[in-house]
Amino acid sequence: MSEQLDELTEMVRDERLTELRRALEEHAVGDIVDFLERLGVRERAVAFRLLPKDQAVDVFDMLDQALQHEIIEGLKDVDVALFFDALDPDDRVRLMDEMPASVARKMMRHLDPRERSLTNIVLGYPSSTIGRQMSPEFVAVPEHWTVGQALEKVRRAGADAETLYTLPVVDRQRLLKGVVSLRVLVSAEEDEAIEELMTEVDSVDADLPAEEAARLCADRKHLAMPVTDSEHRVVGIFTVDDALDILERAESEDAARHGGAEPLHRPYLSTPVLRIMRTRVVWLFVLAIGGTLTVQVLDVFEATLSQLVVLSLFIPLLIGIGGNTGNQAATTVTRALALGDVSTRDALKVAWRELRVGATLGSTLGVLGLLGVGFTYTWDIGVVIGLTLVALCTLAASAGGLMPLLGKKLGADPAVFANPFISTFVDASGLVVYFLIARAVLGI
Amino acid sequence: MSEQLDELTEMVRDERLTELRRALEEHAVGDIVDFLERLGVRERAVAFRLLPKDQAVDVFDMLDQALQHEIIEGLKDVDVALFFDALDPDDRVRLMDEMPASVARKMMRHLDPRERSLTNIVLGYPSSTIGRQMSPEFVAVPEHWTVGQALEKVRRAGADAETLYTLPVVDRQRLLKGVVSLRVLVSAEEDEAIEELMTEVDSVDADLPAEEAARLCADRKHLAMPVTDSEHRVVGIFTVDDALDILERAESEDAARHGGAEPLHRPYLSTPVLRIMRTRVVWLFVLAIGGTLTVQVLDVFEATLSQLVVLSLFIPLLIGIGGNTGNQAATTVTRALALGDVSTRDALKVAWRELRVGATLGSTLGVLGLLGVGFTYTWDIGVVIGLTLVALCTLAASAGGLMPLLGKKLGADPAVFANPFISTFVDASGLVVYFLIARAVLGI
Repeated sequence: MSEQLDELTEMVRDERLTELRRALEEHAVGDIVDFLERLGVRERAVAFRLLPKDQAVDVFDMLDQALQHEIIEGLKDVDVALFFDALDPDDRVRLMDEMPASVARKMMRHLDPRERSLTNIVLGYPSSTIGRQMSPEFVAVPEHWTVGQALEKVRRAGADAETLYTLPVVDRQRLLKGVVSLRVLVSAEEDEAIEELMTEVDSVDADLPAEEAARLCADRKHLAMPVTDSEHRVVGIFTVDDALDILERAESEDAARHGGAEPLHRPYLSTPVLRIMRTRVVWLFVLAIGGTLTVQVLDVFEATLSQLVVLSLFIPLLIGIGGNTGNQAATTVTRALALGDVSTRDALKVAWRELRVGATLGSTLGVLGLLGVGFTYTWDIGVVIGLTLVALCTLAASAGGLMPLLGKKLGADPAVFANPFISTFVDASGLVVYFLIARAVLGI
Repeated sequence: MSEQLDELTEMVRDERLTELRRALEEHAVGDIVDFLERLGVRERAVAFRLLPKDQAVDVFDMLDQALQHEIIEGLKDVDVALFFDALDPDDRVRLMDEMPASVARKMMRHLDPRERSLTNIVLGYPSSTIGRQMSPEFVAVPEHWTVGQALEKVRRAGADAETLYTLPVVDRQRLLKGVVSLRVLVSAEEDEAIEELMTEVDSVDADLPAEEAARLCADRKHLAMPVTDSEHRVVGIFTVDDALDILERAESEDAARHGGAEPLHRPYLSTPVLRIMRTRVVWLFVLAIGGTLTVQVLDVFEATLSQLVVLSLFIPLLIGIGGNTGNQAATTVTRALALGDVSTRDALKVAWRELRVGATLGSTLGVLGLLGVGFTYTWDIGVVIGLTLVALCTLAASAGGLMPLLGKKLGADPAVFANPFISTFVDASGLVVYFLIARAVLGI
């Protein structure tokens, strides 16, 4: 596969366009998407314009939003209208969120009235909610219908609907009563009542944050979930592949912030260097400012340091171990939060667990530190290192475990509060602990 | 919801079992699973035995594998056989992988012959492959059939099959020719030919690593993908919810190793403290051993340090910034690797990008460092810090970007090679750079 991609890339580079057009026809949509995502902006626009119209629409549909936006910018208005019209209302709204408001409004005017009104339903919800990500094109069946009636509706309404596999069942007031799956419908008799076949429903409120809804859908293994308004009327549906998109985006964000940077929101190789730099510089700067705390701590203890330069030899090792212990705890708890295994209400339980884990780890490393340093340097210093490791690991694990919960409680992304900040905190407080223990043990 | 969970938890604690049994009946399966995952082993066993048989089977099905295993251990043989029989062959195999071989064999003997032979198909593939995770219960339709015939088969074979929404289409030799969706079937006329309706297929080989197959399924937004043997005969199917499970497991592993620990493979609050400690201690120890390199580096430069104790004040700040820069690069590239946006063949491109990103970041921080330290300490030291930051960030970003690719190339988990090891590497090499620059600039 990768050699084929390289061949295609060479064709764009060399502008062998007729050849490229023919070659592209033989590739599946997924492969073409992979190929386009690795090209530069200009080359991607060239290659995209070579695709036959209907293939182009499918490819466009699967592209990263940031790239969709760039392609739209490079197209003539009439083509833009075509792609815009071909998208599902939910995808259309997500693309509009990336475009300047004036362009978005112009696009909306070109839409046919039905598509426009569907799009407006989705636009009515705040951008972080599942209402904004759902599809308003669903097939609902009234509970008093028979299987035959329902299948007839499925056949007629089928082509446009987001999914036909999970059908919301509603009463006469359009209130959600349950769901029935197409699987059950095709196996049932024509005259059975929907009421008898429908199952209990897991639905989400349109105002629920999109990530929570997606996590629920993935955890509970639903192919689709109905979305309801505050009166429990069905307003849309979202499918497991929307959930996957939302989770992938959320996980990219978490991963990036875990590493102390903003997410790229686009494929790595298609992102300009300066843009990558911008996702990192602010974080790095803030963390560096936090890091100056360690300079101040050491400045306070400079007299102690001058008396015993050997103490400075262990500084990187100690803060490294403290940082790692804190990271371990923060990572475990952040992941448990994301999976819903713990909530902010478990703060005390988490702190007590991490305190014990940290103390156990610290004692183990402490004994090793005592012996190692005692034999190579002096036993005095060995005792200092040993005791510091016990205190440091206990402190780091407890703080690391609590940090993500604190972040969540404050309404921030737990990943932000976790790893990068835990290091800064542990670095400074670990040094204080180290020098206090050193002064006490060595009597200086 | 959480208050209700607390109420249930109190009922177990106080052994108010009749009350608990009644309360459990009113909860959905998903909620009961959430509840059970927060209990201790003994309490979970008590609560589980209160569930009515058919609800118990559904709950069991959704539980974490580690917890399934514990519950099985606490049950009588006759009950074990019941649960074992109710599981799908793929889930059964995954549970067997966690049980002692002797228990697993005994369980297999209790299975009815059809279930046993299906289980054996899955057992025939190595445990990391998609063959081991697929379901052998699929409904395939011959290409020369009509829609009516296909729907008839779906109706008859329906109840047992893993999915009916994606049906593999095969020729007379059972070779995979395409897929047809139930959605298309119900909208088509009874006498249309399957051949005319089937679409091109994205299938995976049974020997493909499970994570790759799952990533493909999620990326390409398939509800299910046929699994084929080396001759392109269909041997099974795997669905997007299996893919979600596999990806969640893989992401938990990546997240844990990113933070320098082994994954828990079970809900956080249900994991004993000593077990959490065990997932961390080896990593921490290995990283600490790596950290002793910094002690050796500083030992070499001890004379320089004694002459100018002020140099030691900046050690934690500098290695903190180096570590953060390296982490940022490593995290970005690890994520890009996981998403398939880069491959090991892009190593040069990645290195060149990260070198430029690192140099830009280093120059920015370097100027700030020069000014900040210059004004508060001396301009000599300011120049040392400024130059060190430029060199350090360039080094850290390039190494951080290459590390995950190196890990992948060596067949290790890229996340393992990324963040924890990058810190160790950057700490030691950063100190060398710092002292060499200091000696050169200060002439000591």
